[in-house]
Amino acid sequence: MKKFEEKTIKTTPIYDGRMIKLQIDDVTLPNGQMAKREIIKHPGAVAIIAVTDEGKLVLVEQYRKALERSIIEIPAGKLEPGEEPVVTAYRELEEETGYGARSLMFLQAFATSPGFADEVIYLFVAKGLYKIDQKADLDEDEFVELLEVSLEDAQQMIVEQRIYDAKTAFAVLWLAANLQHNL
Amino acid sequence: MKKFEEKTIKTTPIYDGRMIKLQIDDVTLPNGQMAKREIIKHPGAVAIIAVTDEGKLVLVEQYRKALERSIIEIPAGKLEPGEEPVVTAYRELEEETGYGARSLMFLQAFATSPGFADEVIYLFVAKGLYKIDQKADLDEDEFVELLEVSLEDAQQMIVEQRIYDAKTAFAVLWLAANLQHNL
Repeated sequence: MKKFEEKTIKTTPIYDGRMIKLQIDDVTLPNGQMAKREIIKHPGAVAIIAVTDEGKLVLVEQYRKALERSIIEIPAGKLEPGEEPVVTAYRELEEETGYGARSLMFLQAFATSPGFADEVIYLFVAKGLYKIDQKADLDEDEFVELLEVSLEDAQQMIVEQRIYDAKTAFAVLWLAANLQHNL
Repeated sequence: MKKFEEKTIKTTPIYDGRMIKLQIDDVTLPNGQMAKREIIKHPGAVAIIAVTDEGKLVLVEQYRKALERSIIEIPAGKLEPGEEPVVTAYRELEEETGYGARSLMFLQAFATSPGFADEVIYLFVAKGLYKIDQKADLDEDEFVELLEVSLEDAQQMIVEQRIYDAKTAFAVLWLAANLQHNL
């Protein structure tokens, strides 16, 4: 998996922020020429496909400043340093939805924007949801609204672009293929 | 779609590069508190699910510096300023694969990393592929290898994490659901 490898000659840090870092890598291309690569470093994230006993998909609506609008997504959150993705997934599911899960199955990992970012999302499927009595707190700058929708409603939300991000688009396709086995 | 809106008080540009820009927005949260949002501006991109008459999915392998490895993806490319996504899609399909398409159907758009980037991918399905005699040139810093694989092979590539990005993971699920109607 090193085909067409681009070797780093120099790394120039540009920005070191709360969520992301930006650096410019000077690289040697396979043909010996030089090029510059703009790279965002991100800690990675988890996302959870959570389906209730009634077959409803658990979603959260939140404002996404980068898009200047709110969108409806599956529950998700950033990894803390050194944290196992499954631990993050249990925590974020609880914080964002008030649901615990009897089990979380790792489904798949994927890079979200390989052209410029190293962010990877670890996707889990939550089974055996139950309401938590004492719901954990959200981050202080996080505002989310919980929704529970049928597959049909989720598909309609894609048509209306209220669901509008890659991980949730993937989750709805996955649910359409797996709902009958999931219940 | 302005629920929990975060109003911009100030925008601080940090970096203006070849592919991306970085800015910090100072915002007012719904509860009146202030917060900072790190935002990547990206021109947007297209990606193409291209299936040959033999039912093979057309893929390209390329090195992704952000991930420090090569991955196998559906053909994709950035929008030029003011360009209609469908125009980009015809061009990128031809440049990266040497295939023309008799038609491109718009399938869906999705944001790749709504937590920190405004990048949106416009996803198309290419029908009626034909080989171009005089293949268009790739960008000078672009090195890609063409692959044509069965659905089964693509699914195995996900297991082996050779396919490892969100748009291609989505495309393989879509293909599994639609292959019989597509041929």
